[in-house]
Amino acid sequence: MKLSDLSASTGVAPATLKYYLREGLLPAGARVSATRADYDASHVERVRLIRALVEGAGLSIAGVRRVVDAIEHPPESFQDFLGAAQSAISVGALTSPVSPEVRYAVAELGWGDCHSDALGLLQAALDTADRASFPVTTERLVAYGRAMEQVAEIDIGALAADTAGASRSEMLRYVAVGTVVVDPVLVALRRLAQAHVSAARLGLPPPPP
Amino acid sequence: MKLSDLSASTGVAPATLKYYLREGLLPAGARVSATRADYDASHVERVRLIRALVEGAGLSIAGVRRVVDAIEHPPESFQDFLGAAQSAISVGALTSPVSPEVRYAVAELGWGDCHSDALGLLQAALDTADRASFPVTTERLVAYGRAMEQVAEIDIGALAADTAGASRSEMLRYVAVGTVVVDPVLVALRRLAQAHVSAARLGLPPPPP
Repeated sequence: MKLSDLSASTGVAPATLKYYLREGLLPAGARVSATRADYDASHVERVRLIRALVEGAGLSIAGVRRVVDAIEHPPESFQDFLGAAQSAISVGALTSPVSPEVRYAVAELGWGDCHSDALGLLQAALDTADRASFPVTTERLVAYGRAMEQVAEIDIGALAADTAGASRSEMLRYVAVGTVVVDPVLVALRRLAQAHVSAARLGLPPPPP
Repeated sequence: MKLSDLSASTGVAPATLKYYLREGLLPAGARVSATRADYDASHVERVRLIRALVEGAGLSIAGVRRVVDAIEHPPESFQDFLGAAQSAISVGALTSPVSPEVRYAVAELGWGDCHSDALGLLQAALDTADRASFPVTTERLVAYGRAMEQVAEIDIGALAADTAGASRSEMLRYVAVGTVVVDPVLVALRRLAQAHVSAARLGLPPPPP
C-alpha cells in the first residue's frame, strides 16, 4: 500500500508517518519507484505500536526507539527479555540505591528473584513518597505487593495463553504494550475501587445515578 | 522564617519558590517590611505537596493548582470530596462515553456506586489499549478489578487510621498525595511481581545475585 493508504489505515497523518520514517521508528517501505514505496501489514502494526506507546504511556520518541530496538533484537533468556521490555518502557525513571526496608519487603513477599532495575524504580517511587511527607510503611508495601502479585498472575497467564507459538519479537511486543497500556487501566480501577470501598466502609449513600 | 530559610528547609531554589508565589500555588508570607515576608510550617508543608505532585505525578502547574484549590475549598460530602481529589489529579486525561462492557464489568464487581469521572478515565484507558491492538477482555478487566479492590482496601484503611480527627483539608491532602505517590509504587511492584511470577510459572532459574 501507499503512504496515503497507510495513513488511512492507521488514522495517523502522512507528515507524522514521514517523521517516524526519518526517526527510524518505522522501517522504510519496499522501494517501487524513485518516488514511491510500498507498505504492508507489518507497517500498520508498527504504527499502532508507536501510537500506543506515545498515547498510552506518554513515551518520548527516545523511549519508543528503545522499545522498538528491544523488539528487533530480543534477548535470549526470558528473564532478560522481560527485563528488556520493562526497562525500555521505564525511560526517564530515576533509580535509587535499594534500602534495607525494601529488601525486607521483597523477601517477605518471597520475591527472591527480582531484577535490580525494577527494584531501583520501586525505591525511587518510595523516595518520592517520603519527600512528599507520605511515607509508605513496610507493612503497607507488603500488602500492596500481594495485590500486585495477583495482577501479575493475570498478566503472565494471559501472556502464556495469547502468545503460545508466537515469535520472541511478538512476545516482547505483547509484554511491552501490555504493561504500558494496562498501567492506566489499573490506575483508573484503583480510583473506582476507592470510591466503592469508601462508600461501603464509611456507610455513605451512593451518589444519584 | 525568611524565603532563604524556606528554601533551605525544602531544598527548593528561591527562584522556584518565587515562581510558586507568583502562580498563587504558595500563599504569600506575612508581610514584615517592604522587602521581607515571614513564612511558617504551613508553607514548608505546601512546598512539599507541590513537589510531590510535580515530581511524583508529573502534574503540570495547572494540575497542581486544581489540587491546591480542592484542598482550600473542600466539598461537603465525602463522596464528592474523594471525587474532587481524584479529578484534580487526573488532569489532561481524556474521558470517553462508557461502553456496555465496562458497565457490565463494574456491575460484576459489585461497584454500583462509581462516580462517572473515574469510569470515563477507565474507558479512555481501554480505548487506548484497543487502538494499540491490545484489547482487554471483560473477564480480564473484572480480574484486575478484584486485585485493585484489595489495593483500595489498603488505601481507605490507611486513610481512616492516619487521618482520624484531622480536618477535611488534611484528609483531602492525604487522598490526593496518597493516590498520586502510590501509583508509581504499584507500577514498580507490578513489574517486580511479573518477574517473580514468570520465573515461578515458567520454571526459570533466578538471575545471578
